[in-house]
Amino acid sequence: MDKQHLIWKEENRRNVLDCRIFSVWESNCKPPAEQHSKNIQRTFSLIEARDWTNVIPVIKTPDGEKFLMVWQWRHGAKELSLEFPGGVFEPGEKPEEAAARELYEETGYRAGSLKKLGDFSPNPAIMSNRIHFFLAEDLKCEGRQELDEDEYVDVEFVGIEDVLQGMGKAPYINALMGSALSLFYQQKKHA
Amino acid sequence: MDKQHLIWKEENRRNVLDCRIFSVWESNCKPPAEQHSKNIQRTFSLIEARDWTNVIPVIKTPDGEKFLMVWQWRHGAKELSLEFPGGVFEPGEKPEEAAARELYEETGYRAGSLKKLGDFSPNPAIMSNRIHFFLAEDLKCEGRQELDEDEYVDVEFVGIEDVLQGMGKAPYINALMGSALSLFYQQKKHA
Repeated sequence: MDKQHLIWKEENRRNVLDCRIFSVWESNCKPPAEQHSKNIQRTFSLIEARDWTNVIPVIKTPDGEKFLMVWQWRHGAKELSLEFPGGVFEPGEKPEEAAARELYEETGYRAGSLKKLGDFSPNPAIMSNRIHFFLAEDLKCEGRQELDEDEYVDVEFVGIEDVLQGMGKAPYINALMGSALSLFYQQKKHA
Repeated sequence: MDKQHLIWKEENRRNVLDCRIFSVWESNCKPPAEQHSKNIQRTFSLIEARDWTNVIPVIKTPDGEKFLMVWQWRHGAKELSLEFPGGVFEPGEKPEEAAARELYEETGYRAGSLKKLGDFSPNPAIMSNRIHFFLAEDLKCEGRQELDEDEYVDVEFVGIEDVLQGMGKAPYINALMGSALSLFYQQKKHA
């Protein structure tokens, strides 16, 4: 598979805005067909942010397998969202460390088993970071939430089938939870 | 389910940057617990953009059902990505119009049947727009790609199982394609 004819070349990028959780850059690039010509360049806006993690905590109950999920207000959408726990890496953190920490902080649960399912670009058109997905099993409640300032989170166990059927409708408004589910079903087929 | 204790109230927002495909805003909000106090406010950065659409085109072949997918360079991730066709709404466009147009422009195919599967916030933490997913069936090749300037797209038919198994690894780097797959499997269970 030779896809060289699709590949752009970045010449340079320039920071245009710094916010608390992301920064915006202008990336100057040469199109695939014109990399030998000197004068043609296009500019694309992109967003840099630290990597994110998202954890799918699964627990066996007498009513079948359930996901441990969190209710949160989301400031971009201005809506309540029912999601898997997750968040932003701390500086220097490895993916599995970030996953274990976010799971504990948002829910008070620790996982006996934490397995990497895969990682994606959350939005490769405009974002440069990655989101790392984990499956958490052997859950134990070891305390209570340790929320960041300004974090308000409710915890709920939800049936796996309810989550699949709810995707794409409120309160399952977060597309990245659909990404998580696709990796969950991928590993279920392999298991 | 009373989740009032999680709901923030936006007081105002201020534009801080305009790019070609998105703008950045500072949103000043009151936390749930403090909506009756006058002096407490937090600021969150958010990104406004037009709505997006993404289309899952399915075709029956002698080798089983396949997805019609597109190879593209992605300027945020700086990587090649294998995705379902899609893109940004034109001004005034309805979701199904945007879906049919993007499918045709990127692949040259038109769908006899276009069915809405659901919509998400692509990233409710920081983005205010929505992404609308469609299932496209009864595909007919009616011409050739009509790409925007600076769009370079290769088309490929890929087995459904290959796509599920590939998610979370290159070239399936786009998390929103996982979101699409979750809705595809949701409707398959209902069908």
